[in-house]
Amino acid sequence: MGDAAGIGPEIIAKAYRERPDWMAGSFVVGDVGTLRRSAQVVVPAGALALPVARIAAPQEALDVPPQCIPVLQLGDALEPVSWGRVDARAGALAGRCVEWAADAALRGEVAALVTAPLHKEALHAAGAPYDRFPGHTELLQERAAHHLGLPVADVPVRMMLANDELRTVLVSIHVSLRQALEAVTFDNVLQTLRITHAALSRVLGRAPRIAVAGLNPHAGEGGLFGREEIDTIAPAIAAARNGGCDAHGPFAPDTVFMRARNPGGAAGDFDVVVAMYHDQGLIPVKYLGVEKGVNVTLGLPLVRTSPDHGTAFDIAGTGRADASSLLEAVRMARTLGLTSA
Amino acid sequence: MGDAAGIGPEIIAKAYRERPDWMAGSFVVGDVGTLRRSAQVVVPAGALALPVARIAAPQEALDVPPQCIPVLQLGDALEPVSWGRVDARAGALAGRCVEWAADAALRGEVAALVTAPLHKEALHAAGAPYDRFPGHTELLQERAAHHLGLPVADVPVRMMLANDELRTVLVSIHVSLRQALEAVTFDNVLQTLRITHAALSRVLGRAPRIAVAGLNPHAGEGGLFGREEIDTIAPAIAAARNGGCDAHGPFAPDTVFMRARNPGGAAGDFDVVVAMYHDQGLIPVKYLGVEKGVNVTLGLPLVRTSPDHGTAFDIAGTGRADASSLLEAVRMARTLGLTSA
Repeated sequence: MGDAAGIGPEIIAKAYRERPDWMAGSFVVGDVGTLRRSAQVVVPAGALALPVARIAAPQEALDVPPQCIPVLQLGDALEPVSWGRVDARAGALAGRCVEWAADAALRGEVAALVTAPLHKEALHAAGAPYDRFPGHTELLQERAAHHLGLPVADVPVRMMLANDELRTVLVSIHVSLRQALEAVTFDNVLQTLRITHAALSRVLGRAPRIAVAGLNPHAGEGGLFGREEIDTIAPAIAAARNGGCDAHGPFAPDTVFMRARNPGGAAGDFDVVVAMYHDQGLIPVKYLGVEKGVNVTLGLPLVRTSPDHGTAFDIAGTGRADASSLLEAVRMARTLGLTSA
Repeated sequence: MGDAAGIGPEIIAKAYRERPDWMAGSFVVGDVGTLRRSAQVVVPAGALALPVARIAAPQEALDVPPQCIPVLQLGDALEPVSWGRVDARAGALAGRCVEWAADAALRGEVAALVTAPLHKEALHAAGAPYDRFPGHTELLQERAAHHLGLPVADVPVRMMLANDELRTVLVSIHVSLRQALEAVTFDNVLQTLRITHAALSRVLGRAPRIAVAGLNPHAGEGGLFGREEIDTIAPAIAAARNGGCDAHGPFAPDTVFMRARNPGGAAGDFDVVVAMYHDQGLIPVKYLGVEKGVNVTLGLPLVRTSPDHGTAFDIAGTGRADASSLLEAVRMARTLGLTSA
């Protein structure tokens, strides 16, 4: 469901209204009252709100009529929260929803997991255990490690952002740029390349052509503007190639994304770009519009996608939020859920 | 002329061939032999190479016939250099060309200056004085400071990258990302905002609407992923607004460029985005293709533009290089040269 104070519940309601065919078989983990309120918000003039059906178990989602939103209530009903405000209760419930859905996916009770946006300050405000997690991904990683009986460090994950013309996988995500620089290590870059290779090989049915972006302007221009390309990134690419990855670079960050673009289905030079930090990869993916971007978590023993936008507190509750990215995330989750099944 | 071993000379020759109307009145500062060789390289099958006319002073450029390339020879003829190889002689001549042209512009002998790409390793290999300069911009800044009798620190400049749908001005350029982080100071951000405001006010005839990108993912998300937005960038924006700038932000870097885009002439939310480091601004400007991007140096007492690509050593001498960005740079230089005259 995501954060109840954000646009998550209303884009979910919109998605069930706009594409019941894509949503068939899915259900919402969250709060019945919140979904009812959001279903009201997205009603076009003269129409009726979609009904919300409370279900007790995942398999009941298959039995609800189309254009009905099945919701699995987690715990007690949430007291209505103010739209667009950080609320610790909304943060805590959003965290619990992710945990529940991750555990269900790990047990094989659901084929895939699509996460609506949560608000990181609300998650932080919720306190323990959620304030330890900067975002969804780390929460999912912790549940997966718990399920596998491994330390979290042994379940490395990476975020992939994808739209119809570009895929990018990030070495680090929700840390300051200063910390992101420290995260550009041989091990982290190599691990990113291995995870990318393994995950996209499954999706494409062949080894993906991976472009690796440098860290510095012009990829350091031969060491003049930084040495990470020479000391860290190039050796990691060499090691990945020795392990069978079709990885290339490091390339100048300001042109590699353009080279990997495949507009209108025309093939770009690469299937995916490995980016050294969050904004390096997300700026190009989002540049043409966020509506169609999908976030995929690679490396986990479950399928998880999400829209590539946030809670949009500034328009939450107005019904104006666009459900396109969520719908794309559902569509990709279905595809990946089938591929890995 | 740019670096003789790169694509500079051949895109210049192409520009004179393709758009003699845009090139009328301009001339090349460099080496006659290099331009003759490049004019041969870009000849379509069955056509003759454009003639190259050696001129001795700027005003002679007005008297050469159309489809003739006027070249002002700097020093002795350059011994032919290998295409696509770092060559200290090519680096030194490229540096001298920039110095000469900057001084001519500062003395008012030319209306504007368009710089073809130089190769930073060649500039470095050229030794003193050129190895002190990471690129064109710092060289120009030094000449301007010399002309004005000021310390270089008192002639702050900023790079603007622009194409038909997006303008971005960078707080720092050719330094490692690590150094770029250190350059995000109150003074540097405020100075960038003031320079942007002054330069674009002249171009637009009104105060530009300036968006400021944050440094960290999600602009720090309220301090969770870095505090530069709170401690440095927001105060600089406030100070700029007090000084009359229409500046806004800091905004999440991964969506601010999309918001400022004005595709097909439709107005975006902003006239320009101030970016905190090189790739933050250049990735979106180049994402849709580098052919139409133009680099403009703001803050100098002269007009200077350049194409937003490099020497492309991999294709130098093949005649395949695209002159579009250089032509756009000439077109913008003409406009700005008239505006500030």
